[in-house]
Amino acid sequence: MASKTPVGFIGLGNMGNPMAKNLIKHGYPVIAYDVFPEACKEFQDLGAQVTESPADVAERADRIITMLPSSPNAKEVYTGANGILKKVKKGSLLIDSSTIDPAVSKELAKAVEKMGAVFMDAPVSGGVGAARAGNLTFMVGGVEQEFNAAKELLTCMGSNVVYCGEVGTGQAAKICNNMLLAISMIGTAEAMNLGIRLGLDPKLLAKILNMSSGRCWSSDTYNPVPGVMEGVPSSNNYQGGFGTTLMAKDLGLAQISATNTKTPVPLGSQAHQIYRMMCAKGYALKDFSAVFQFLREEESL
Amino acid sequence: MASKTPVGFIGLGNMGNPMAKNLIKHGYPVIAYDVFPEACKEFQDLGAQVTESPADVAERADRIITMLPSSPNAKEVYTGANGILKKVKKGSLLIDSSTIDPAVSKELAKAVEKMGAVFMDAPVSGGVGAARAGNLTFMVGGVEQEFNAAKELLTCMGSNVVYCGEVGTGQAAKICNNMLLAISMIGTAEAMNLGIRLGLDPKLLAKILNMSSGRCWSSDTYNPVPGVMEGVPSSNNYQGGFGTTLMAKDLGLAQISATNTKTPVPLGSQAHQIYRMMCAKGYALKDFSAVFQFLREEESL
Amino acid sequence: MASKTPVGFIGLGNMGNPMAKNLIKHGYPVIAYDVFPEACKEFQDLGAQVTESPADVAERADRIITMLPSSPNAKEVYTGANGILKKVKKGSLLIDSSTIDPAVSKELAKAVEKMGAVFMDAPVSGGVGAARAGNLTFMVGGVEQEFNAAKELLTCMGSNVVYCGEVGTGQAAKICNNMLLAISMIGTAEAMNLGIRLGLDPKLLAKILNMSSGRCWSSDTYNPVPGVMEGVPSSNNYQGGFGTTLMAKDLGLAQISATNTKTPVPLGSQAHQIYRMMCAKGYALKDFSAVFQFLREEESL
Amino acid sequence: MASKTPVGFIGLGNMGNPMAKNLIKHGYPVIAYDVFPEACKEFQDLGAQVTESPADVAERADRIITMLPSSPNAKEVYTGANGILKKVKKGSLLIDSSTIDPAVSKELAKAVEKMGAVFMDAPVSGGVGAARAGNLTFMVGGVEQEFNAAKELLTCMGSNVVYCGEVGTGQAAKICNNMLLAISMIGTAEAMNLGIRLGLDPKLLAKILNMSSGRCWSSDTYNPVPGVMEGVPSSNNYQGGFGTTLMAKDLGLAQISATNTKTPVPLGSQAHQIYRMMCAKGYALKDFSAVFQFLREEESL
Repeated sequence: MASKTPVGFIGLGNMGNPMAKNLIKHGYPVIAYDVFPEACKEFQDLGAQVTESPADVAERADRIITMLPSSPNAKEVYTGANGILKKVKKGSLLIDSSTIDPAVSKELAKAVEKMGAVFMDAPVSGGVGAARAGNLTFMVGGVEQEFNAAKELLTCMGSNVVYCGEVGTGQAAKICNNMLLAISMIGTAEAMNLGIRLGLDPKLLAKILNMSSGRCWSSDTYNPVPGVMEGVPSSNNYQGGFGTTLMAKDLGLAQISATNTKTPVPLGSQAHQIYRMMCAKGYALKDFSAVFQFLREEESL
Repeated sequence: MASKTPVGFIGLGNMGNPMAKNLIKHGYPVIAYDVFPEACKEFQDLGAQVTESPADVAERADRIITMLPSSPNAKEVYTGANGILKKVKKGSLLIDSSTIDPAVSKELAKAVEKMGAVFMDAPVSGGVGAARAGNLTFMVGGVEQEFNAAKELLTCMGSNVVYCGEVGTGQAAKICNNMLLAISMIGTAEAMNLGIRLGLDPKLLAKILNMSSGRCWSSDTYNPVPGVMEGVPSSNNYQGGFGTTLMAKDLGLAQISATNTKTPVPLGSQAHQIYRMMCAKGYALKDFSAVFQFLREEESL
Repeated sequence: MASKTPVGFIGLGNMGNPMAKNLIKHGYPVIAYDVFPEACKEFQDLGAQVTESPADVAERADRIITMLPSSPNAKEVYTGANGILKKVKKGSLLIDSSTIDPAVSKELAKAVEKMGAVFMDAPVSGGVGAARAGNLTFMVGGVEQEFNAAKELLTCMGSNVVYCGEVGTGQAAKICNNMLLAISMIGTAEAMNLGIRLGLDPKLLAKILNMSSGRCWSSDTYNPVPGVMEGVPSSNNYQGGFGTTLMAKDLGLAQISATNTKTPVPLGSQAHQIYRMMCAKGYALKDFSAVFQFLREEESL
Repeated sequence: MASKTPVGFIGLGNMGNPMAKNLIKHGYPVIAYDVFPEACKEFQDLGAQVTESPADVAERADRIITMLPSSPNAKEVYTGANGILKKVKKGSLLIDSSTIDPAVSKELAKAVEKMGAVFMDAPVSGGVGAARAGNLTFMVGGVEQEFNAAKELLTCMGSNVVYCGEVGTGQAAKICNNMLLAISMIGTAEAMNLGIRLGLDPKLLAKILNMSSGRCWSSDTYNPVPGVMEGVPSSNNYQGGFGTTLMAKDLGLAQISATNTKTPVPLGSQAHQIYRMMCAKGYALKDFSAVFQFLREEESL
């Protein structure tokens, strides 16, 4: 184990934190960086080497994983004044697990290539729980012959690592999955709400949907109705899980990709609007399954 | 087998035909009726007794199953001039497997009760294939103590027979399932279409969705993209399966129920509109998964 | 003036109250009824004769106007145990100004005809303000040769009285107008909100829309953005005007009519859902232009 | 007249052609350029000086108007290898009448400023007919003290020239107007279609809407139902006017602006999807009022 070469990790937030810890658990020395110094402290205690900039990380590690909240952050970390590209070594493998516009992934890939290094986009499916348990799904885009090198690291953090095609297709797969997820979740919330109004018991209705053609991950694994399932955000006042703002962000990426490729996505765009309205109505920090609560008519009128 | 008492069956269309045949296979003498006499011929050859009106069926059988296309047909068969109620015997069990407005089911139940008989609504999930194979799902609403009597017959035609609650809840469960199904199907079509436009291989994208949170029946069992799965309508030019007109009809029922109960169903109502537009654009008789084709931009422009 | 024959008026709510007063102002003796006795008191003081039931009104007046909140109320007032039809005189003219399902108007018309009387549907456009000012628009459906008799009364309460066609077309015109109104209002709210976010001054943007192809009643007469116009609900915390619940109700009628006639109304159905969600989120009693407030992102996040 | 200094005009397509002609009519010598040489021929005959690149135009004129189909074209014309900025003179006034992303207008403005020149965005409202008649509406963004200089030229081509605020607000006003226009047009088409189905005469219904709160430019000036008005595209098989592809493009710009500013636009995004679907179904080149035809159910089924 001790012989493993160090891995850089940039972005130690809600998701990056448990992901980097899983790398350490698998014996990789970690070179860490985050814009918020306090996010790094915990890693110092775990034996990681904490640096002062993405460039510093690139100087000390030739394999780097980045996990950042949005396109501008990713651009800054890669191409900014103290960005990775300032000191990246030839032949380095740079894996970006952020969820960003596929067009930006392609831009970054070009810039990385010019420096003689390799870029792959590898966004994840699964929330903080999956990140802790090490069973995220990684959707990876990039040159196929580098996939195995990436997979070696990603399997420390995820149970599924899927090669999707050229650079940007990891993002595409993530965006498409989350758009369908949002649609199914809202659909499940609507169907459950309507059924309850029509006199059905929610647990029974969920059972029926799950044995029929309405079955989906949102109905059988993450049901949005409080009391139907245990251990999901709906049974914990919609705390934890995957926040409404994050879902709205991913749907915005889907919307931009669909607009640019002239692809009709009538329900996807409506789902985007609904999560956008929820953000405006106080649901920003609640789990995205809170759409059930948003749609439910209030008693008082 | 010979000792089984006869069962009436009214409505021998695409669905009723294979359902009635399964009753016969299970040894039940069938008393048959359909408005179209030619629909009955086949049953005469199978040894069924063919009658001239729903009332005649009611005279000869005290357990009757009805399978009709819409609310007005159901009203006519039960309460019309030659309807079941003209000659229904006290204590008869009348099971309506049509998909209709739950409010109409409740009306029919009241009329049936006045005659001293029992009414249950038992709409089905699953198409013609499932009807032939005898593995439909029945969603049953009505008085609970009569459920076992209904189940005895329904298990001849379906593999799942679920008690849903009081009269009308069978319809409610069906409507909610199909609304969610339509939403997931359109969502799957949008996600697959967008992914393909962004450079993903359709089979790979389907595989990724199916191992992630976008997974749903429409993605893993009935994928709408030609070539992704075998044995589904999308691989047969969208022939067979569950017609777009039928889906539009069920979504109309969902819409009316939602309007009457003041339940917000933003995606359900949009799904209704999309299937309604498809009917107007030549897709009426195609399987409902043809929404993929409808949304796909044409090359020529 | 004294020689005018009495007119019955049933339903003295927010709208009925000022409408009946305008009849009185024009010299018509009014025979009044409302389910809530307190609604009648004011009319007693104004010299109207207050009765105990719709039947009583029918006994004393052969021209009756009804203004009721929904289809069931209208059915009750016409065909109920103490309804108009119990004592209606042959040749009476019954004008229903309620906004209800056109199909119900047709049912009532048939029942009225059987008694040898005449029924017309005459729903109104314009809110409480227009009712007070006597400049409502009436959309009238029914036998054309009776239109002038109806118009004589309706011009006391409205400045536009339009003959629309056979029974039910008054409702149809009203429903279509209000569906388009809801769509334009939400559209205006979205366009104003987006423009403000992009740096435009709201008054200037309204001015530009109003001289361009985006111009509509909601932008030039009833602008939903506080401060853009005076004397409209948006400048009075969305009080007064046309309530969100009422708009949701009318959109529900449009939805049911569209479903029954298989007419695609994608934006109409989405508008319905938005007003339904607003009702669920505390906007029920606010003017329908409050959709601007509903869509506006909250600062605090 | 002869003493007027020349004006550059780049982009002589459907809109640019009549706009440039109006400049000539007002006595301005025009320096013309278009990527398609044949578009220039007509101008040569009219006495205009035809050049070989945008840079050439900039060399010979210090006031230039550009009218281009999309953001990439605008970028090329301004910042490309033979772009305006290669030879722009200090103090030049560059007015872009293209409809593009406001963010791109801001980028171009910055690049122009660096060269010591002035940039204003001035997109238009009104189609080819208005361009010919010289009564376009111009929505102008940029430094206020330059507005009068711009207005001098723009009034030759339009009857309304409105100052909107800083650079980009012209685009913002245009985008907001067209989003509202699309919503009102679809809403008018839905309302007219529903009314016709419910038995109303289309001309009468249009008249009623136009005197009521449903009134909008799409109902009273550009009605989408064939036969209701003369001289509009709906009465000419939806030829001419404002093409569906162009509307889809503008709605895409609105969508991107709304996504970037986190503004909920539920009907705007649905309108975008509907025009996108229309493009996919053979309506790309028809006037955008053809949405009436798109929504109308076909008889044959």
